[in-house]
Amino acid sequence: MYRFKPELRIPGPVPVPSEVSLQMAKPVINHRGAVFKEKFPKVLSRLQGLFETKNPIYMITGSGTSGMEAAVSNLVSPGTPVLCLVGGFFGKRWADLCAAYKAEVHTLEFPWDRAVDPDQVKDFLADHPQIELVFMVQNESSTAVLNDVEAVSQARGDHQALLVVDAVSALGGTPCQMDARGLDVVVSASQKCLMTPPGTAFIALSERARAYMEKVESSRYYFDLRKYEQFMDKGETPFTPNIHNVFALEEALMMMEAEGLDNVYARHMLMRDMMRAGARALDLELLVSDADASPTVTAVKLPQADEFRQRIREKYGVEFAGGQGIHAGQIFRVGHMGYATPLDVLTSLAVLEIELKKLGKAVEAAERVLTAR
Amino acid sequence: MYRFKPELRIPGPVPVPSEVSLQMAKPVINHRGAVFKEKFPKVLSRLQGLFETKNPIYMITGSGTSGMEAAVSNLVSPGTPVLCLVGGFFGKRWADLCAAYKAEVHTLEFPWDRAVDPDQVKDFLADHPQIELVFMVQNESSTAVLNDVEAVSQARGDHQALLVVDAVSALGGTPCQMDARGLDVVVSASQKCLMTPPGTAFIALSERARAYMEKVESSRYYFDLRKYEQFMDKGETPFTPNIHNVFALEEALMMMEAEGLDNVYARHMLMRDMMRAGARALDLELLVSDADASPTVTAVKLPQADEFRQRIREKYGVEFAGGQGIHAGQIFRVGHMGYATPLDVLTSLAVLEIELKKLGKAVEAAERVLTAR
Repeated sequence: MYRFKPELRIPGPVPVPSEVSLQMAKPVINHRGAVFKEKFPKVLSRLQGLFETKNPIYMITGSGTSGMEAAVSNLVSPGTPVLCLVGGFFGKRWADLCAAYKAEVHTLEFPWDRAVDPDQVKDFLADHPQIELVFMVQNESSTAVLNDVEAVSQARGDHQALLVVDAVSALGGTPCQMDARGLDVVVSASQKCLMTPPGTAFIALSERARAYMEKVESSRYYFDLRKYEQFMDKGETPFTPNIHNVFALEEALMMMEAEGLDNVYARHMLMRDMMRAGARALDLELLVSDADASPTVTAVKLPQADEFRQRIREKYGVEFAGGQGIHAGQIFRVGHMGYATPLDVLTSLAVLEIELKKLGKAVEAAERVLTAR
Repeated sequence: MYRFKPELRIPGPVPVPSEVSLQMAKPVINHRGAVFKEKFPKVLSRLQGLFETKNPIYMITGSGTSGMEAAVSNLVSPGTPVLCLVGGFFGKRWADLCAAYKAEVHTLEFPWDRAVDPDQVKDFLADHPQIELVFMVQNESSTAVLNDVEAVSQARGDHQALLVVDAVSALGGTPCQMDARGLDVVVSASQKCLMTPPGTAFIALSERARAYMEKVESSRYYFDLRKYEQFMDKGETPFTPNIHNVFALEEALMMMEAEGLDNVYARHMLMRDMMRAGARALDLELLVSDADASPTVTAVKLPQADEFRQRIREKYGVEFAGGQGIHAGQIFRVGHMGYATPLDVLTSLAVLEIELKKLGKAVEAAERVLTAR
């Protein structure tokens, strides 16, 4: 067999630049010492640039789900009426988390191949003035759907509800615009478009959300954002942080800033369009329409998808993701987020067309998209 | 000025071997792929050797406190009567966590320079048959006290209470013997004696504790150990793990096994005794008696301790820790855990005796301890 490199093309965790990896190997420092105290606020400030917010950002040592639970545990009291917008695996996770915190959970269910409909949200909120929180996912990586957080935010009109957004696989791949869009809470994590290994979650809260948080009665300690607030002024976290993720994140954010955030977002859109054009040239069926398609991951329908993925992995070293929930075994998902480029999309398409015996077709179609920009 | 290396001598996080650091810089892999699924169970099995247990060990992406909260959130229902043994900052953290989960919290308070008294625990439990859980700290790093978990475990007699132990700064520095000592729950973390960067916590539960956990009613999701149990059979975690901590931990555990765990523990005892003999030779007052002294950290009383620490850090690059709680500004603490050797203790003592203008005294005393073994 010829030798192939391992090529991770799943929707997170994703490959990271060597410059970022090397930060992970730096010596351990005192998390309450001068070096960390100087570095940490600068990294948070860089994150504010990415969130496009003046709001404080809290950093939690944990997976993306720890950031989601931080949102729920600081906002949901037993009996709080909440609305969860569910169109995939991670929308359902919001509902499960709210149920675990004994909220009064209302859900609006959407097909698992389509974006959330802001009009339905508007109608539901008009009929349910008591709803205090709306939970949604910006980029539903389980279905490869990008939801329109701005439209949902506006659909609230003058309804009281705070909007909580899971941006775990969106932040850094598509604009966040937290303040301009009036998002009250945004959660993200290190291991997706931020080109950093897994281990850290982030959460930003609007002034309204911070005021709301003060009156919440729930059992929380590790996720209690009031503790993080107290330590933030000192440039510290209440509990030992993932020091190396902070180092790595600083490097990754500097690389993204050097590229220019607009260019980063345009690169993701280009990769999306190349991937979709290539898949279509192979007569593969895309799960999601152009209007709702994610810039960071693409879902392709295929019978025996898992066996197909396994062959691709074994023969060419390229690792795609499978389907989740109702899509298990029915689709495969190609990640194109973070440290990924148009050439990576070409090789993702190349192994597809080789395996499907349609040499050149998909790559050519994708190259046309690339050269037309 | 002469150049000095940064020498981190705090009670965690601690320096890690280069072999371990390099693991942190490895490429990102799929946390649901074959390589991780093969590696993860092996690392858990190595941890079982360290815990000296046949019980399953759950790995949580988070700080040490996330492991403590995993214990509380899986064991404490609102109103559960618990006993917390408080003789320092981390004993108090157990009580705070139990209060956050609305337990009926009973505390036994001990002086913040002395070990927990098993006789008092015995008497208290005899008077309070309703107590369901006892929370204690094995190595109270805030005071440099080692508590006798075996004696407390035995003090329960045939009382029903489960014993929950914070071994964050103990595991790998002193024997755990979870099964032999009848400990029901043991919590630890990566960044102390395990010579691995911060970012991961571990928790082991006895069969009795796992049965007890099933009936607990508390709001939990990220820390819900039943989820971890479901994924463990597949060699996975329910939420994206800190992949690089798993790599690093494997390397560190292999190094500890190569040294031999008995030798590891003996090295910590030697470092403790050297540190204490040296401090005494400088007429410094130790916070803790020989009987209660920690093998992983030593606390020294000193007026203006923080100014003293700052001078040592600036002049020689050696970083000691300050006091916590009632000891703030009154003591300094010298970590000698994990990737630390007798020669490190000699240099910790050297900067003390240079700064105190008592050249040679402490180093000589410590060398006597070393050569007598």
